[in-house]
Amino acid sequence: MTNPIPALSGSALSALRGVLGPKGFTDDPDLIAPWLTDWRGRFHGRTPALLSPADTAEVAAILRIAGEHHIPLVPQGGNTSMVGGATPPEDGSALILSLRRMSRIRSLSAEAGVAVAEAGVILANLHDAANAIGMRFPLTLGGKGSATVGGLVSTNAGGTQVLRFGTMRALTLGIEAVLPDGTVFAGLDPLKKDNRGYDIRHLLIGAEGTLGIVTAASLRLVPAIVDRAVGWIGVESPHQALALLRRLENRAADALEGFEIVRADSLALVLKHVPGTRAPLAGDHPWHVLVEVDRSDSRGEPPATMLENLLAEAFEEGLFRDATIAASEAQAEALWMLRDSLSAAERAHGPAVQHDISVPVAGMPDFMIDAAAAAEARFPGVSATAFGHLGDGNVHFHVRAPAGSPPDWAMGAGKAISAYVHDLVVAAGGSISAEHGIGQMKRDENARLADPARLTALRAIKAALDPGNLMNPGKLVPLATGAAAP
Amino acid sequence: MTNPIPALSGSALSALRGVLGPKGFTDDPDLIAPWLTDWRGRFHGRTPALLSPADTAEVAAILRIAGEHHIPLVPQGGNTSMVGGATPPEDGSALILSLRRMSRIRSLSAEAGVAVAEAGVILANLHDAANAIGMRFPLTLGGKGSATVGGLVSTNAGGTQVLRFGTMRALTLGIEAVLPDGTVFAGLDPLKKDNRGYDIRHLLIGAEGTLGIVTAASLRLVPAIVDRAVGWIGVESPHQALALLRRLENRAADALEGFEIVRADSLALVLKHVPGTRAPLAGDHPWHVLVEVDRSDSRGEPPATMLENLLAEAFEEGLFRDATIAASEAQAEALWMLRDSLSAAERAHGPAVQHDISVPVAGMPDFMIDAAAAAEARFPGVSATAFGHLGDGNVHFHVRAPAGSPPDWAMGAGKAISAYVHDLVVAAGGSISAEHGIGQMKRDENARLADPARLTALRAIKAALDPGNLMNPGKLVPLATGAAAP
Repeated sequence: MTNPIPALSGSALSALRGVLGPKGFTDDPDLIAPWLTDWRGRFHGRTPALLSPADTAEVAAILRIAGEHHIPLVPQGGNTSMVGGATPPEDGSALILSLRRMSRIRSLSAEAGVAVAEAGVILANLHDAANAIGMRFPLTLGGKGSATVGGLVSTNAGGTQVLRFGTMRALTLGIEAVLPDGTVFAGLDPLKKDNRGYDIRHLLIGAEGTLGIVTAASLRLVPAIVDRAVGWIGVESPHQALALLRRLENRAADALEGFEIVRADSLALVLKHVPGTRAPLAGDHPWHVLVEVDRSDSRGEPPATMLENLLAEAFEEGLFRDATIAASEAQAEALWMLRDSLSAAERAHGPAVQHDISVPVAGMPDFMIDAAAAAEARFPGVSATAFGHLGDGNVHFHVRAPAGSPPDWAMGAGKAISAYVHDLVVAAGGSISAEHGIGQMKRDENARLADPARLTALRAIKAALDPGNLMNPGKLVPLATGAAAP
Repeated sequence: MTNPIPALSGSALSALRGVLGPKGFTDDPDLIAPWLTDWRGRFHGRTPALLSPADTAEVAAILRIAGEHHIPLVPQGGNTSMVGGATPPEDGSALILSLRRMSRIRSLSAEAGVAVAEAGVILANLHDAANAIGMRFPLTLGGKGSATVGGLVSTNAGGTQVLRFGTMRALTLGIEAVLPDGTVFAGLDPLKKDNRGYDIRHLLIGAEGTLGIVTAASLRLVPAIVDRAVGWIGVESPHQALALLRRLENRAADALEGFEIVRADSLALVLKHVPGTRAPLAGDHPWHVLVEVDRSDSRGEPPATMLENLLAEAFEEGLFRDATIAASEAQAEALWMLRDSLSAAERAHGPAVQHDISVPVAGMPDFMIDAAAAAEARFPGVSATAFGHLGDGNVHFHVRAPAGSPPDWAMGAGKAISAYVHDLVVAAGGSISAEHGIGQMKRDENARLADPARLTALRAIKAALDPGNLMNPGKLVPLATGAAAP
């Protein structure tokens, strides 16, 4: 880290400065510093300059100059990657391409149910803009105050509200992007049917900026929620929770907005560590479920009545042990608070190795039980738990340190534990990255575990579209030659 | 066509014969003949042999042998392509790779809502298998008695029931495919969240067999319909039809199964040419809409009541002129018969140049009116009409021959008319192939009209994954070098 940053071509930098002007180009280390480290402080990089284009034409100009001078680029939005996807390499060889100045919502239509948002639009601002016209953008997540549309698209982001309307992939109706050769892919028109060949939109979604720079997206809006019901349910097991979920989906799939599962010990950590929380049910239950049912139309059955009837019926069928329905919006918020505090409570409890994994929904209950037991047997002293989006087949699988472990326990033990957990995931037909992406953190694990056919295809596509390996090098795609690290 | 078929390497053919056995290999011209011409008789090809593998391993072996000997392969399912996508080239340089023997439904689960079907499963058989367990596979189309899963996936097929559950892209949860190098992409696990890099599944869907051979797919099943209501509605204009659609979507998006638009003159052709049809409404109306509302649960409001209430409300708001709701299943069938007979009635009326196009839904009403008027002004004597899937932004745009034109009128006039219509579609931000694909029929038009960035990306991906250009050569992707025709 004490080596000087290698000099980039002076003519390249002055060309970039000329295109972008003073607002779009800086080499001031103080202005650059906040963007060199990921938000969790795990990855650090260096760069000689930060580029902040104002529009798509400037992005195209940057890519053309970068191509000419062989300068790698690291696209960055809110810098809230969970996997080091937006941190520049340590050797200072790449420039940061920040999309934050491109923060315009180009259009917004309640009638068509579409918003066209530039890459730098912050998720919370998109939520507000949609709400102002009686609509909503249904995806949300913890980082909504900083995460941007470009990053959300490029990582195919998920969150707690995926059950009904899907991940970013399902919500992204069109894309504008600059490809590595500097040409603009103009795909914003929200066509429901389009069979003109390989789907470039779906290729760029989740590509983590390694195939080009997403500059804008057409996003699906849905009618705003007018009324919701939130319930907390004690269940016997993940299997019972899944049976309950199937029942609710059968009866009310189109109203089911959330279905999250939590084990008793994780809930206990929330009650212990998070001020102002209290147990939602009177007795003890081995597993818990949070359920939310919504409506976006004030006619018909209120969600509370619907949920009450659904649960009455499910109870008759022996699908849960006990349940409560929030009697007010404040109570509903309090139930969600229990769910949303899980990560913080686990952190307060002590170090853990965390995994963002998915398996087919039908296989998730077995996985939650068996993988936890297997990890505990393999690594004596640890305890393993999983919580989250049962309905999406996606849980956060935590392996907690043995009692008395040092705070940096995960740094040492993490690699072996993650490799073990990932092997279990692959054996269950699952994915080692459900919603966080690969970035630099999981790149080598992805290379180790990917189906050879998949890996060959990834590498071929990367080499074909970005032959100079200039687009976010070292992220996602493990290059065959070991050239992945720029 | 009188030239002899060029000899393929004898060792290649005997290797293939050895791998596939007598049931999987034939060079008998009589057995091959039915598969050399597309079902509409527009495209003719030749081949020295027809390969019919029994399983995925045999497909992989074929691709390895073909790669070694540089033999192009044309994958074929039911041979019902609308764009010559499954017809071999005329020079006999390619072998047909038929997936029809791979017709096993590997698994079927009502609880998980997933069927795993091999590429050769015929759509109608999939329908039957799903029905037998109380579920349905919601996509259907005219060729359901011959169209196969592999072809449906590879062309991202649509149809009349796309509004609620989407095209094949939305219904295909996982894919197994053999890539051009003979490796098997094992992606059948139906993961709802998977962020391990470029989405190979979405790349193969709609790729028309040009990037590899789809051998099986995990497909979404939904609960069977227990009750439906079908209505026929007279409206003022496509604009009024769209306003009505928005109203229904707002109130009952999750029950809305079909919404098809027809102009009065097209309906008149059905009533004139199709025996046993009669006008559904008493008066004359300039445009007509067929609507279907379903439920898959016998509780709650019956669809007929729901549709009646929705229409009563919409009528108050002036959203249509007149309407009728089928009082029996026979009447419902009769209404659908009017819609499903449109193509046949147009054919009976006389020659026409047909276009399968899409534009953003919000722009479709203007397009239907303006493009028809423009085409009629540009080509004196023709009449232009559009009908179909208004809710998908996809209509079939027909330009009918002037009165007294010869039956083969479209052969001569077609090219100029299609180029003109396609220019209008592109100007409206639309797609020249909404649901039929590109195949060989639209390949050059796709090259003429595609966004250069899109075209460059298509070519780069094709060259990267299929460097020998052996996978369905000459289809979909116009190669830069003019080497597209094998």
